[in-house]
Amino acid sequence: MKETKTSGRTIGFIGLGNMGLPIANNLLKTGYKLRVFNRTKEKGAPLVKQGAELVDSPNHVAEKGSIVFSMLADDDAVQSVSAKDPDFLERLGPGGIHVSMSTISPETARQLAEQHSERGVAYIGSPVVGRPDRATAGKLFILLAGRHDAKERVLPLLECVGERVFDFGENPWNSNVAKLALNFNIVAAIECMAESFTFAEKNGIRREEMAELLSNTVFGGVVYKGYGQHVAHHDYEPAGFRLKLGWKDLRLALQTAQGSATPMPIGSFLRDRMLSAMAKGRGDMDWSAIALGASEDAGLSAKT
Amino acid sequence: MKETKTSGRTIGFIGLGNMGLPIANNLLKTGYKLRVFNRTKEKGAPLVKQGAELVDSPNHVAEKGSIVFSMLADDDAVQSVSAKDPDFLERLGPGGIHVSMSTISPETARQLAEQHSERGVAYIGSPVVGRPDRATAGKLFILLAGRHDAKERVLPLLECVGERVFDFGENPWNSNVAKLALNFNIVAAIECMAESFTFAEKNGIRREEMAELLSNTVFGGVVYKGYGQHVAHHDYEPAGFRLKLGWKDLRLALQTAQGSATPMPIGSFLRDRMLSAMAKGRGDMDWSAIALGASEDAGLSAKT
Amino acid sequence: MKETKTSGRTIGFIGLGNMGLPIANNLLKTGYKLRVFNRTKEKGAPLVKQGAELVDSPNHVAEKGSIVFSMLADDDAVQSVSAKDPDFLERLGPGGIHVSMSTISPETARQLAEQHSERGVAYIGSPVVGRPDRATAGKLFILLAGRHDAKERVLPLLECVGERVFDFGENPWNSNVAKLALNFNIVAAIECMAESFTFAEKNGIRREEMAELLSNTVFGGVVYKGYGQHVAHHDYEPAGFRLKLGWKDLRLALQTAQGSATPMPIGSFLRDRMLSAMAKGRGDMDWSAIALGASEDAGLSAKT
Amino acid sequence: MKETKTSGRTIGFIGLGNMGLPIANNLLKTGYKLRVFNRTKEKGAPLVKQGAELVDSPNHVAEKGSIVFSMLADDDAVQSVSAKDPDFLERLGPGGIHVSMSTISPETARQLAEQHSERGVAYIGSPVVGRPDRATAGKLFILLAGRHDAKERVLPLLECVGERVFDFGENPWNSNVAKLALNFNIVAAIECMAESFTFAEKNGIRREEMAELLSNTVFGGVVYKGYGQHVAHHDYEPAGFRLKLGWKDLRLALQTAQGSATPMPIGSFLRDRMLSAMAKGRGDMDWSAIALGASEDAGLSAKT
Repeated sequence: MKETKTSGRTIGFIGLGNMGLPIANNLLKTGYKLRVFNRTKEKGAPLVKQGAELVDSPNHVAEKGSIVFSMLADDDAVQSVSAKDPDFLERLGPGGIHVSMSTISPETARQLAEQHSERGVAYIGSPVVGRPDRATAGKLFILLAGRHDAKERVLPLLECVGERVFDFGENPWNSNVAKLALNFNIVAAIECMAESFTFAEKNGIRREEMAELLSNTVFGGVVYKGYGQHVAHHDYEPAGFRLKLGWKDLRLALQTAQGSATPMPIGSFLRDRMLSAMAKGRGDMDWSAIALGASEDAGLSAKT
Repeated sequence: MKETKTSGRTIGFIGLGNMGLPIANNLLKTGYKLRVFNRTKEKGAPLVKQGAELVDSPNHVAEKGSIVFSMLADDDAVQSVSAKDPDFLERLGPGGIHVSMSTISPETARQLAEQHSERGVAYIGSPVVGRPDRATAGKLFILLAGRHDAKERVLPLLECVGERVFDFGENPWNSNVAKLALNFNIVAAIECMAESFTFAEKNGIRREEMAELLSNTVFGGVVYKGYGQHVAHHDYEPAGFRLKLGWKDLRLALQTAQGSATPMPIGSFLRDRMLSAMAKGRGDMDWSAIALGASEDAGLSAKT
Repeated sequence: MKETKTSGRTIGFIGLGNMGLPIANNLLKTGYKLRVFNRTKEKGAPLVKQGAELVDSPNHVAEKGSIVFSMLADDDAVQSVSAKDPDFLERLGPGGIHVSMSTISPETARQLAEQHSERGVAYIGSPVVGRPDRATAGKLFILLAGRHDAKERVLPLLECVGERVFDFGENPWNSNVAKLALNFNIVAAIECMAESFTFAEKNGIRREEMAELLSNTVFGGVVYKGYGQHVAHHDYEPAGFRLKLGWKDLRLALQTAQGSATPMPIGSFLRDRMLSAMAKGRGDMDWSAIALGASEDAGLSAKT
Repeated sequence: MKETKTSGRTIGFIGLGNMGLPIANNLLKTGYKLRVFNRTKEKGAPLVKQGAELVDSPNHVAEKGSIVFSMLADDDAVQSVSAKDPDFLERLGPGGIHVSMSTISPETARQLAEQHSERGVAYIGSPVVGRPDRATAGKLFILLAGRHDAKERVLPLLECVGERVFDFGENPWNSNVAKLALNFNIVAAIECMAESFTFAEKNGIRREEMAELLSNTVFGGVVYKGYGQHVAHHDYEPAGFRLKLGWKDLRLALQTAQGSATPMPIGSFLRDRMLSAMAKGRGDMDWSAIALGASEDAGLSAKT
């Protein structure tokens, strides 16, 4: 782990879920003192063992001029622990930085940035790409946007969290735009694989053969390699990323597209696929379970 | 180049276009004698210099029990030089092998296989994946299907042509199914990138930033890396693979899907995108030019 | 005009736009006294001439136990003049009825119904179908839903406004669901005509011939007859119903579909068509201008 | 029945299916002698009773300079009884007219017209709109195209067959274009109703209520009234028009659209709906059974 110039001070962390916990854990290794909050307190126990302080209220993680990270479920959660709580911005005060890692809508991020700015707090949008195992390994991809000076201060910390940082400029919401665009591509690739594997299956080729072909020729990366296997084997449980959460992300993308008058016909079709999966009670499966739609449409019953 | 057990005999090659020429050239290096045919004779000159024999009729490349490769434009071309020409199968005769590398419909491949089989000739479907530069480098991906014994005989030759061979079993048309399914995924990925880059652009992010993000995080492989750049920069000329040829491949895929009652909604949408591009006179641009559709729908004018 | 048992008392009317004004005018003919409000006061002048009283605040149209109609632009407008204004429900009080004719979301209608109910006011959802000319003629179609007793009281009034009433039961929001479903069918029919007229045009048949064929054989009704002419002649200005308002209605439909996990693939496609029309600056044309999309996709320039 | 100037001579009729038989029957009433052919001879019995002559070969219905009608299943059937049979055009000879009522592709019609023309026979494309009951009543809609003089000669006969004739000019295939465009609108309307009825159902409104609303307000005509009931009640058997035949018509439409570079996104989606219905074994249901797709996507089981 790299040493950081800011050692000796305290940083805050709100939200210790599947992603937040391993990220906070990696931050501990920087030598900073860590003050953490989670709605379900028990989740914080492993961090406390390593010296973190567990507090009773989200705003208690903040101290004047410090850095607070948050990793929460949705727009509402981020707003309620930060901009809607007058104490939070007050405590963080001028000079403070809120590094918001949740996948939220650019519109919400824009509002949050303004509200933080009014109180002298820098709001940084830094959603991450990667599943819990990569978070544990400190190998997340980090999408970063916000005020230059604030980014400079947090970069040494983020280096303990992620493998690579992508900088999307000064507007904090731009990193959210990029995250939604990336997630759209992932779920679209899942659907494309599903359609082509079903096509292959109905014409005498095993689904696995197609997954092998794609990921060993012109498509690389974890999406084709990883989801390719799940889609080939109709293996959707337990969920790596729950369909209902993926559905939320797609909704945010389409809502943002709508606000900017951007037609996304593949996105619109995916909306229907996900809605249908929700209607069929698959919200807690992995989001790659949308692949069942292509099979069902083709009159095939997937053994799930 | 690997040495092959069959050196000393003659193999035939029909079709010396962008792909056929470099493939034939690599086959020359195996030590085989090569007898070649091309409608436009001049294209064969470089091979003649290296010792190949240029003949006047496609069926003159064939001799009893030998191996003939063909790489032609479409279903009709393959049929007219082989199954529809009684002399061709006669000359190739029992024990002969036709290695058909063209991207044609599985249905045509099935018919060709039957017609060849009736005359004792083994028909092997072996469409390839990769552009001319990979063909030159002997680094194509080869999709192979056909009779086991025939595949055994041609494998040493194919090793000089391609980097890796994917075997799709005994039915020669299965390799065509796989090729069409793969091409569907490529053009679908182009459209997905186009929609997401347009989304990014309309929300304040440069298209190139999105291309970088995708291809350096969860998407690897030449599709996202290569086409990503073309789509980001709206760079569609000169064509690497002409849109009208890609349109032919998508049509074959949808026709095959239709024959097997397989709905492919993304495929159906791509059909409209490509038809629209054809209607707008973009048939000779690279097929990634379908990406202009997403920009135009969003009211953006792409500078092409 | 039918005589009504409630003559002699006063009814209120909020919102004197293209639709509200002729409806209010017809209500005047019932013999009721009419108290009206409009943000732009001048619009009320014609009604004042016929004896209506023009008031300064929306809540001043209400009196204890009376009936108030509203015809407003959107969800926010309806909420702000009724549920969000404590005076309004207070003045209308127990026994009062609010007949809400605006096209709003079922979800908003559900909230309004609850908020009214808490103060003893009956909320009736009664969106209407028809353009201003039909409103003037008292020939609207009225979609009605709400408490039985309240509907009984307002029916004699509605008979002066519309040609026929469709009763959707006791839940006030159900009439909004029906209205959104109907509007979806209209805009879908416009797109279908557009695609088929373009198809005809590109194959040597005049668009007008197709419009004639459809509306004189198996399709009747004002949609095919009326919009058929507009789409055939690419005649979209001046707007009968502005595209941006139609877009709002489609959005409400898709949002409601989303809330009930109902995929609507044609609806999703129409979303893209309308978004594209908005992106191209056509928001103030008639909503049938989405038909330009099919022509443009086919490489035709519509002379508009 | 109207009297016709051509009484006394003989006309021919090929194809006595559900539609052909009642049409031939109405032609008998014109006073013409009728010579008929059907592959299954028994079907001709009712006509023989009324004086028609039943012959053994399609070309035997033709005599020099006469008029022959045909109503057959598909492109192949029309070609094999006419253009592909040298005797047929020979017997019909110069001055003869072939009135082709089948729903076939414009491309096939164009070829037929040429082949007929080479032998001096006028080819008239006159597909009809309407089900067997309307055919029996002589109330079909007739789409007519072909040489002016030939149309003049057959019009008096067609007046006994149909309620109204729509003339699409001199190119015989134009009437086929129009027929395919019309059928596209019908199946599209079925899908739109299906989506909106499902939307209504999931939001607390009965499907029948929506059918009533649509067909009694802004949508008239047999499509919304008739299919509206079938879709509302999921009543698809017995078939009025079998899904697999409707699928053939949609395929012809999309193929024609493809040939003229006309994107039809709603058509593309319908292609998937119909393919899915075929995959689920619904080819012999009424084509309105595609409506089951919207219900299934929404997680509803339709009781069929």
